[in-house]
Amino acid sequence: MDSLPRSLRKTIEFFEKFPSIGPKTAKRLAFFLLKIPQDDLEGFADTLRNLKRTSLLCKTCFNLSEEDICSICADEKRNKSTIAVVEDVLDLLSFEMGNKYKGVYHVLHGKIDPLNYVGPDDIRVGELIMRVEKMGDALSEIILATNPTLEGEATAMYIKNKLKSLPRWEANFPSPESRSQNAKLKITRLAYGLPIGADLEYADYMTIERALEGRREY
Amino acid sequence: MDSLPRSLRKTIEFFEKFPSIGPKTAKRLAFFLLKIPQDDLEGFADTLRNLKRTSLLCKTCFNLSEEDICSICADEKRNKSTIAVVEDVLDLLSFEMGNKYKGVYHVLHGKIDPLNYVGPDDIRVGELIMRVEKMGDALSEIILATNPTLEGEATAMYIKNKLKSLPRWEANFPSPESRSQNAKLKITRLAYGLPIGADLEYADYMTIERALEGRREY
Repeated sequence: MDSLPRSLRKTIEFFEKFPSIGPKTAKRLAFFLLKIPQDDLEGFADTLRNLKRTSLLCKTCFNLSEEDICSICADEKRNKSTIAVVEDVLDLLSFEMGNKYKGVYHVLHGKIDPLNYVGPDDIRVGELIMRVEKMGDALSEIILATNPTLEGEATAMYIKNKLKSLPRWEANFPSPESRSQNAKLKITRLAYGLPIGADLEYADYMTIERALEGRREY
Repeated sequence: MDSLPRSLRKTIEFFEKFPSIGPKTAKRLAFFLLKIPQDDLEGFADTLRNLKRTSLLCKTCFNLSEEDICSICADEKRNKSTIAVVEDVLDLLSFEMGNKYKGVYHVLHGKIDPLNYVGPDDIRVGELIMRVEKMGDALSEIILATNPTLEGEATAMYIKNKLKSLPRWEANFPSPESRSQNAKLKITRLAYGLPIGADLEYADYMTIERALEGRREY
């Protein structure tokens, strides 16, 4: 390594900090950059400089956006009465891949993770609650789409409890009728089960148990 | 993807061009960049701009270098009479990892690969021959350290034949004595065999065959 030019060494060291990139891959990536045209390299350098400046958070759902409101929230064809609550933007992108979901999102930017000192106030839970309160009965469903991990479950559970015990919620709907109307707000969680293409032989027992619990008539 | 800021999309697309980086990893790398401090990002962008400008090739061995002569060729402790011929700089780095090899290198920057239209003139074979001729009997060994692949073997074979039939070689050493002195130039090839830590159970037959051929008294 010491025999390499300093700029190349710095590039390799930078790549080594990336998640899932080891020293060997870092070297290969840096050497790849030596082979591309200088113009492309400079273009990439410019993009990087502006990356954070031009990547804002949508004021409604906290998706990444160039504008104050992201293209999903601004899209008139999306069904605003359904909100999928996801941990981060990569999860949102996975949802969008399918072209099936037509609702909108709320990106938490994290999950409740006490072992790493991340509490509810460190992620965008407060903003979700405010958004739900503000929308009132314009909102018909909240899909808790956090990951099926310990932390994701804890986050979903926390949000569910918070939503069900909102004091402002009851204050906004003082009469029993309006409150029952409000009961139309469904809080759902993504289904657990075997992933498509999986092999029972390799499935873990927890997944099989959940797939059994959730079995449906066929 | 369309919902993302353009600079972020461009970053993802750039990463997707990297070797061994798929669409999912490209996204993860780009999102990682959003989390690092702006100063680090700009520093990296500057490094990238200068990467190619400051990465020259050593005029002797074609290793990457900031100067005309790389740090290995300039190192007085290195044994200049032994040259290891490698396909590229990453191979040289693997050699250097061990701290065992004390000779110098010649980087071919490729391998003879007719299927991809790469002939001997497209890599630094000519420069190697010239270097060998120029050094005369100051050179005692050439280690052909190209990869044990079809192309690497072809490259090693080509270089061996070229070295053994040099017309200028004979012209430089007209007398039988000087030519026999020159016969001291050893041309060697790295050993084939089982890699350290390997399991015979998973070794391919070619490797076992070569390990058998190369077996030594114990």
